[in-house]
Amino acid sequence: MVDFIGTERVQELVARRGTARFIKELAAEIESDYLRWSAFDKSPRHATHSSVGVIELMPACDGRLYAFKYVNGHPKNTAVGLLTVTAFGVLADVQTGYPLLLSELTLTTALRTAATSALAATRMARAGSRVMALIGNGAQSEFQTIAFHHMLGIREVRLYDTDARATDKLERNLARLRLPGLKVARCASTAAAVEGADIITTVTADKCNATILTPDMIAPGVHLNAVGGDCPGKTELHREILLRADARVVVEFEPQSRVEGEIQQLDADFPVTELAAVLTGERPVRTSERDVTIFDSVGFALEDFSSLRYLLRIHHEERGAQQQIDLVPDLDDPKDLFALLVPQPASVVARPGVPA
Amino acid sequence: MVDFIGTERVQELVARRGTARFIKELAAEIESDYLRWSAFDKSPRHATHSSVGVIELMPACDGRLYAFKYVNGHPKNTAVGLLTVTAFGVLADVQTGYPLLLSELTLTTALRTAATSALAATRMARAGSRVMALIGNGAQSEFQTIAFHHMLGIREVRLYDTDARATDKLERNLARLRLPGLKVARCASTAAAVEGADIITTVTADKCNATILTPDMIAPGVHLNAVGGDCPGKTELHREILLRADARVVVEFEPQSRVEGEIQQLDADFPVTELAAVLTGERPVRTSERDVTIFDSVGFALEDFSSLRYLLRIHHEERGAQQQIDLVPDLDDPKDLFALLVPQPASVVARPGVPA
Repeated sequence: MVDFIGTERVQELVARRGTARFIKELAAEIESDYLRWSAFDKSPRHATHSSVGVIELMPACDGRLYAFKYVNGHPKNTAVGLLTVTAFGVLADVQTGYPLLLSELTLTTALRTAATSALAATRMARAGSRVMALIGNGAQSEFQTIAFHHMLGIREVRLYDTDARATDKLERNLARLRLPGLKVARCASTAAAVEGADIITTVTADKCNATILTPDMIAPGVHLNAVGGDCPGKTELHREILLRADARVVVEFEPQSRVEGEIQQLDADFPVTELAAVLTGERPVRTSERDVTIFDSVGFALEDFSSLRYLLRIHHEERGAQQQIDLVPDLDDPKDLFALLVPQPASVVARPGVPA
Repeated sequence: MVDFIGTERVQELVARRGTARFIKELAAEIESDYLRWSAFDKSPRHATHSSVGVIELMPACDGRLYAFKYVNGHPKNTAVGLLTVTAFGVLADVQTGYPLLLSELTLTTALRTAATSALAATRMARAGSRVMALIGNGAQSEFQTIAFHHMLGIREVRLYDTDARATDKLERNLARLRLPGLKVARCASTAAAVEGADIITTVTADKCNATILTPDMIAPGVHLNAVGGDCPGKTELHREILLRADARVVVEFEPQSRVEGEIQQLDADFPVTELAAVLTGERPVRTSERDVTIFDSVGFALEDFSSLRYLLRIHHEERGAQQQIDLVPDLDDPKDLFALLVPQPASVVARPGVPA
């Protein structure tokens, strides 16, 4: 039997843990894996593109555990009442190849993306950052707000989305959350939202080369958390922002980000720093209060690996519905797979009958 | 909700359908997909190797449906009571990216491998083939026997395995099956088993360059169904067998088979024919009663794609336990993912409570 965490169970786990604690623990789990970056078998994700979206498989392995995530991206789904992004994944034991856990990863991906964004910002943003602009107020925006509020001490979020209903929804959810000491300001434009911000988070969804931010909007010292541009042909930043002399660009896994990140707009030799080297302290990126730091995030399989291991741990720690599924056969004699299909002598454990 | 077919449900489906009918229908489903070979987005599988085994992801897509299989190969597992190969897979809708079915594929892989072997043999073996040698009597051997008995009219199987207990197990299971008119003969060696056989099926498991068959064992006109050699460093045939002037070698997907099949022993320009071209009749391989035909099978993702679609269909047709799992969230507003985690107004459908 394989442990199963469905949508309801992950809701229950987040509820029992508390959202802020869940994100902080998840960020610590992700950091612990980035700190042993060289232990991982890394490969760019396998993507299958169609005219309406993409389906991806993202494997990662540390020699002891293996994980993969299935994730889709279909921007037009919302028009028919479906999510743009859904995901699930599996954690398996490298020693036997057996799956250990199947889990939903739709909610979890939003949580781990926010945890990773905030984790990167703790090492990249100016100390004392208090104001964050949040451009794109869709499915991920609440998660980003919670992570930055709890992990960086953000005290003001400045909201903007081209769709006013998205901002309505975000305001409503934040009001219900009542994050202590957090001011929520609705802005009339991206330019108005980023004015005076210490951190700018872009998390827009259109699958196109958009220009959400232009160079004139970027004040010295700001940290850009660029989350929305994450596949070929999907970017958010004007390339001049990346090319600024004082810009320091951090990516998760360089070979993947060259294809999928904001840096797909630049030459292949444009200098970037991998997040792992920033977290270990090997390559600090911010050298002054006036540097512009950019986390060109696309999401990497290691973050899902960490998430699945974290989920399995708290699934066993927290009470509630601990479902299992019979995804793999359990045999008396592992060389006798066919025993599952033939009538057995009476001494053998009962199973569904099979006609002669 | 996503349809779920576990081990018990697949046992039930095979029981309700009958093993022979299941394999024949599955072979027809696989053939129908090979007949539209060019419609598929094909890629070699993604393999993660360790010192004890391999974990693979095998995606396939026809533009309408997407499927992938997770499969491991761990030869030493049986020593600790576990299966060498376990597998599961997912069928998804390309239009939305949503998963439709999660299914066990351990039993199903054995069924689809046998179905594919027999399907290939119907176009490659001599007409009137009645005797099959079966070298390797492990987990897959019963499935191969049933498929060749029902789809090719095999009337005698000649068994050999280096492990006598494997042959004991196969004999016992075949006796329980009582396949009408099938003679089962136990042989003292591979050479004795293949003597006079029309078809030789090799389905051994050791992860090494073995030489199960040598050139002197191969009589003119025989068909070789070489199933066991299926990853780098794992082969069964002496290379001279492949190089014989009258040998006609068929593979599933050439780029994958060059790395994983028996032909990994040969130069990259050694001529092979893809199964799809044999099935469409575009490139018939057997030109005389004396040709030696070789199906160098490694298993291709298309076969799992066909299997998942077939399983989903009969899962809806056959009564019994039709389980579903909450692998993907169902939201009132697809842009409001966070609604799953915040307390909602009373008008909204009940879900697990979340603390403020």
